[in-house]
Amino acid sequence: MNMHAPAGTSLIADLRPEARNAPESGIVEVVNHGRLKPGLIPLWVGEGDLPTPDFIVRAANQSLADGETFYTWQRGIPELREALARYHSALYGRPFAMDRFYVTGSGMQSVQIAVRLIAGVGDELIIPTPAWPNFAAAMGIAGANPVCVPMQFKDGRFTLDLEKLEAAISPRTRAFVINSPANPTGWTATRDELAAILAIARKHGIWIIADEIYARFVYDGSPRAASFHDVMEQEDRILFVQTFSKNWAMTGWRVGWIEVPPAFGQIVENLIQYSTSGSPVFVQRAAIAALEEGEPFVAQQIARATEGRRIVAEGLKATNRVELQAPDGAFYQFFSVDGWTDSRKLAIELVDTANVGLAPGTAFGPGGETGLRFCFARKASDLREAVARLQKALAG
Amino acid sequence: MNMHAPAGTSLIADLRPEARNAPESGIVEVVNHGRLKPGLIPLWVGEGDLPTPDFIVRAANQSLADGETFYTWQRGIPELREALARYHSALYGRPFAMDRFYVTGSGMQSVQIAVRLIAGVGDELIIPTPAWPNFAAAMGIAGANPVCVPMQFKDGRFTLDLEKLEAAISPRTRAFVINSPANPTGWTATRDELAAILAIARKHGIWIIADEIYARFVYDGSPRAASFHDVMEQEDRILFVQTFSKNWAMTGWRVGWIEVPPAFGQIVENLIQYSTSGSPVFVQRAAIAALEEGEPFVAQQIARATEGRRIVAEGLKATNRVELQAPDGAFYQFFSVDGWTDSRKLAIELVDTANVGLAPGTAFGPGGETGLRFCFARKASDLREAVARLQKALAG
Repeated sequence: MNMHAPAGTSLIADLRPEARNAPESGIVEVVNHGRLKPGLIPLWVGEGDLPTPDFIVRAANQSLADGETFYTWQRGIPELREALARYHSALYGRPFAMDRFYVTGSGMQSVQIAVRLIAGVGDELIIPTPAWPNFAAAMGIAGANPVCVPMQFKDGRFTLDLEKLEAAISPRTRAFVINSPANPTGWTATRDELAAILAIARKHGIWIIADEIYARFVYDGSPRAASFHDVMEQEDRILFVQTFSKNWAMTGWRVGWIEVPPAFGQIVENLIQYSTSGSPVFVQRAAIAALEEGEPFVAQQIARATEGRRIVAEGLKATNRVELQAPDGAFYQFFSVDGWTDSRKLAIELVDTANVGLAPGTAFGPGGETGLRFCFARKASDLREAVARLQKALAG
Repeated sequence: MNMHAPAGTSLIADLRPEARNAPESGIVEVVNHGRLKPGLIPLWVGEGDLPTPDFIVRAANQSLADGETFYTWQRGIPELREALARYHSALYGRPFAMDRFYVTGSGMQSVQIAVRLIAGVGDELIIPTPAWPNFAAAMGIAGANPVCVPMQFKDGRFTLDLEKLEAAISPRTRAFVINSPANPTGWTATRDELAAILAIARKHGIWIIADEIYARFVYDGSPRAASFHDVMEQEDRILFVQTFSKNWAMTGWRVGWIEVPPAFGQIVENLIQYSTSGSPVFVQRAAIAALEEGEPFVAQQIARATEGRRIVAEGLKATNRVELQAPDGAFYQFFSVDGWTDSRKLAIELVDTANVGLAPGTAFGPGGETGLRFCFARKASDLREAVARLQKALAG
């Protein structure tokens, strides 16, 4: 045995293959390469540069001062579930009941629970790609198989071919995973597209896992993107995975929610019980403040992203080495660079040469291999500087 | 279809059986029965009555004030992992490296990760029972089968028959789950017993999932219970699941750790990434404060539990209707009541008649059906009152 290998190396072979083979995040790999580099502008992960606003932090402080440090409702405190119902009612323009909403320890945990609800060993879930890699990885750990449907890239835009989506269905298919507005592509489904996807799912009796976490980040002046909420019936097979991370700058809080048919309440509670056993009350109080007092902050976030989107799209176009359109939604610019096909290598090179951290398209599955993801939820001066550095590096 | 059933009831049949059939916690069922009852003394869950101490809360508040609200290291911030290594070095009297320690979103999540590391569909894990029910439930959701080995109850004490433990091993066995000091029984393995269990595991090439979260709560004057750390080699197949909940009154914070062979680092990181993607930095700062400044508080907790243990054992013995010995470790008194065999019914009855909340033994698997679990990590006056109420109810 290699004396320099970490203790226990030989034990790895005795782990469950689905655990052993869970992929290292292709984003984290680049982050770990550059995390400590002085002056680096980090645009690789899906978070903005603003810390959580004070009114949210204060709600957590107050809860802690009140001694809310005990176990609580596994499914979330009723006050937060009620606040979620009110938030949805306002955003989607019709009444929602609190028993559709369950608090989770992150959007990621919502995904994990959604996958566990419907898919096990050998089941298939269909994902348009490039996509957030954690969907496929969560499926893999559960023993299920992600089936990727590469989107079309033309004239700098991604589109989803619904015939290809339907053609990917097999007898083992359990769900479509639909992320709109999409990370990393910015693809944003129209209401008609969502209705068409739902019709296909209904026809085949499969589920939809709907990730609409970027719904507020659209750039056509609408208050939100089209949603499955606009086209569904109460009893449709749709599981919504959601997070407080993006709208309210709460990435570090690890709190989200899952929206399911109300009859699933006890089952979702059990899955929460046996994975993290609930979320801290003080974090949930902060989440309530976000929902109830957060609209001005959300508006500010969207305004910043709108400006960021323009700076990045214009700046990258000016290099004459990239093909792109500014995205319809979310807060990422996905683009390829002429002459580069290995985006992992390019992302690491740009850490070294431009001191800019981008996420490599290789992390997002088939159809994204040559691209880079640039998060523009950041202050304009940083974005201008990052664009200038990239212009220089790509010219060099 | 029943018009009064919650929306989506018919969809339940379309969920994955392992999710659909995950058991409702038998403890939560009783808690939900009595949660809002005025004046009830809640002794049903495994937490004390003290809120988290100020020095821990302050560390979280400071971190929030410093704007530590962003994504962080999936495996935990280095400062906390170093603090864990120092804590273990001090407690077990030999050096530990930080790369054995990974921060999780609760002891429960540590269990989930441990199970996923080693067991999948059809695999077996052997658990001495009565036991904390979440072990078996987490296995079930992963498609693995818990194999219960009932402990012997004699003269008010539980003992573990190591021949029975070994006899339960099959070709599908992946691990023993050993909880010492044990919830709910108080059983506390001697160093010799741990060495014998480890020898059996080594002989059969199986793992041990070691839950030693109550290690500090022993009543023979020792600073801690015997540990697998005392008898293991670095490369033994042992996964330790741990939590900040009990020692530092942090049940509501949802933070724990898992200790594994260092070679597993990337694999554990991946499993964290794809389940909750890490823990809040401000929670981790609080955890550091707990480890570094928490010894006086831990001593206070143990002193309270020592007094509580005496009050409860003496008070219940005085009813002349129970058979029990004060437990060697943990902070639960497990006892049966003459004439009662259905502890679920008895626990609900005692909510109604004594206004005392106890956990029913039915929640803890084979061997515990007739018992009740009484958590004595609580102030003496409450315990005296609870005992008096139980004396009256059991006499009636």
